Amino acid sequence: MPTPPRGFDDTEFAARCTHLQAVMAQADVGAVLLTSEAEIRYFTGFMTQFWQSPTRPWFVVIPSSGKPIAIIPSIGMPLMRQCYTENIISWASPAANDDGITLLADVIHKHVGKDGRLGMLMGRETAVRMPLADLFGLQQRLGTTHLHDMTADIQKIRMVKSPAEQVKLRHICGLVSDVFADVPRWLQPGMSFDNCFRRFKIESLKRGVDDVSYLVGGIGPGGYDDIIAPPVSKALATGDVLMFDAGCIWDGYYSDFDRNFAIGSASAEAQDAHKKLFDATEAALSILRPGITAADLFATMHDILCPDRSSGRDDVGRYGHGLGIQLTETPSHTSWDKTEIKAGMALTIEPSASYGSRFIMVAEENILVHEDHVELLTTRAPRDLPVIN
Amino acid sequence: MPTPPRGFDDTEFAARCTHLQAVMAQADVGAVLLTSEAEIRYFTGFMTQFWQSPTRPWFVVIPSSGKPIAIIPSIGMPLMRQCYTENIISWASPAANDDGITLLADVIHKHVGKDGRLGMLMGRETAVRMPLADLFGLQQRLGTTHLHDMTADIQKIRMVKSPAEQVKLRHICGLVSDVFADVPRWLQPGMSFDNCFRRFKIESLKRGVDDVSYLVGGIGPGGYDDIIAPPVSKALATGDVLMFDAGCIWDGYYSDFDRNFAIGSASAEAQDAHKKLFDATEAALSILRPGITAADLFATMHDILCPDRSSGRDDVGRYGHGLGIQLTETPSHTSWDKTEIKAGMALTIEPSASYGSRFIMVAEENILVHEDHVELLTTRAPRDLPVIN
Repeated sequence: MPTPPRGFDDTEFAARCTHLQAVMAQADVGAVLLTSEAEIRYFTGFMTQFWQSPTRPWFVVIPSSGKPIAIIPSIGMPLMRQCYTENIISWASPAANDDGITLLADVIHKHVGKDGRLGMLMGRETAVRMPLADLFGLQQRLGTTHLHDMTADIQKIRMVKSPAEQVKLRHICGLVSDVFADVPRWLQPGMSFDNCFRRFKIESLKRGVDDVSYLVGGIGPGGYDDIIAPPVSKALATGDVLMFDAGCIWDGYYSDFDRNFAIGSASAEAQDAHKKLFDATEAALSILRPGITAADLFATMHDILCPDRSSGRDDVGRYGHGLGIQLTETPSHTSWDKTEIKAGMALTIEPSASYGSRFIMVAEENILVHEDHVELLTTRAPRDLPVIN
Repeated sequence: MPTPPRGFDDTEFAARCTHLQAVMAQADVGAVLLTSEAEIRYFTGFMTQFWQSPTRPWFVVIPSSGKPIAIIPSIGMPLMRQCYTENIISWASPAANDDGITLLADVIHKHVGKDGRLGMLMGRETAVRMPLADLFGLQQRLGTTHLHDMTADIQKIRMVKSPAEQVKLRHICGLVSDVFADVPRWLQPGMSFDNCFRRFKIESLKRGVDDVSYLVGGIGPGGYDDIIAPPVSKALATGDVLMFDAGCIWDGYYSDFDRNFAIGSASAEAQDAHKKLFDATEAALSILRPGITAADLFATMHDILCPDRSSGRDDVGRYGHGLGIQLTETPSHTSWDKTEIKAGMALTIEPSASYGSRFIMVAEENILVHEDHVELLTTRAPRDLPVIN
């Protein structure tokens, strides 16, 4: 598989910012403050694993026109200079007092004015990444500046992936599909589950993913009841059902899909669950097109997963979500998310089913929505639960 | 190297909670609200990569006595049931409205009372992981409840590592030391820098690390000027200086140290910088003992790195920090951090030096402080910059 070019042209970031600025103008918002990794990367291209250090705050202000303004610790200057920014203001962080707050308040004042509106991310799936005391301090300095929630606006922009983003998603999902296809070659009874995880990560890196940022799974005799725990050291045994859920990254874009395997043999119940998940996914794929809603996807899958219209297992809370620079993005395939599906959206289809006394099974595919068709980014899972001998 | 047991006994979490509860009693705090990955893990043992999904909030309340109370999405129930909790309240998240806020407010009310004090993390190195609108909504519901900042108290507890934590830190730093020792075997001119990263990750996994969560580096002819960027595809060439900075994880505990290598030959300036960093580290190690402060470590290193007492390069902002369940923890070795060093602290010693027109060089070791000696967790870097042919 040829490796696509890394990064984006400035036109990509210009389009993203212009799009946001059009929404800001409509809402009379003078500037938008970003504090979080995903949004700062989305609008400037600033990509680093350094976010794992909680020590320093990072701020980007999107003005009403022009490029973003970065107010960042000086350790980030060399990297930010290569990004889509108009102006970079920096300080030596961590600082004894005032870790960037005065610098930030000055920029906001300049662009928003005394009684203006500052856009922020305040809604679902967001968090403000700065100390709460500093946020309260900033609010005080801003005085009569009104905080305006831009969550829905920014999520709406991010949900639709540009052609350049689609290339990256296609690449990472293709790589991980090949990793999964190869699993039966090396997975065997006797391996410990944590070593299976380690092997999966090594195979993924060998095939060219940048990072295996998220690898969780489930395992147990006849099935599993947990889908977010780290792996146990238990050795795979005949009769086990196991699942890997892989969030791999290439150039900052995620895969997020899983596959189930049975060791030696599979119970009729596990086989039935796997087929039901396949059928629910087929049903979702058959209706997936621009103009339907995330709730329509939920309802279509729920009809198959819970034909008696019961509420079903609510452990997972949804049957899939958006995908991109985060492992999970909006929308959520739930009964209440009426987000309209549009061409360019990258989605997971992720039905879940319960069986037996306590087991859960999940299955997941990654999809790109186009005007006139849907594109599977993942090699479709088989209907029959694969049995490894 | 024998692999230590995973996890902790309940006595570990009981000691942590009891310690916090003693501080809470002194401050008349009825309960502490935790929303962030590191703190929830520290007090309950809840460990999962699922935090990478921003969709769902997670709440833990530490009452004035007894085990923590978890208010979490039902997808986390099976894992949280195995953790150190008294009571788990769950809901199907993501929810259309009220994503856990009413449930959380009820628990807080019960434990804090109408005019009581709720402990929160509001200070340096913290952020509240929940939507800001939900936080404001919670504040409204809590009415006259006073928010009390517990940042310094919780950081003070976390800074001192228990014997069981020390075992994990020793293990991960030992594994990564071996990975670094092996680098000259496989690193060679012509390899692309991103493939060097990939190889480093594979070698780390093969030696038994769980994850290479953080791998950044610098590379360039004669030196590097950036220490947080992702790797470029450029091929290693004679005259390059490169640096890997590795945050690897075993059972939730981090290594964080780096090593420099020169390809083919090293300039006198690069060699001098490397020796100066070694000497600064030696000086820090020679004074490191319980009773000194983080600022003492800074001053000792700064005397060697900037003998003219200039402010020096302030890009990095500090010469090391705490280490544990996060890549970086408190304290910070800066001129202003007067944190007293105590036995049980895990620290990095991380001087940085500038040379040439624009280069920076960093060197880092990981250390455990004991009552009567310091323990190097890392195999000490040599004074001479290693040259790979």
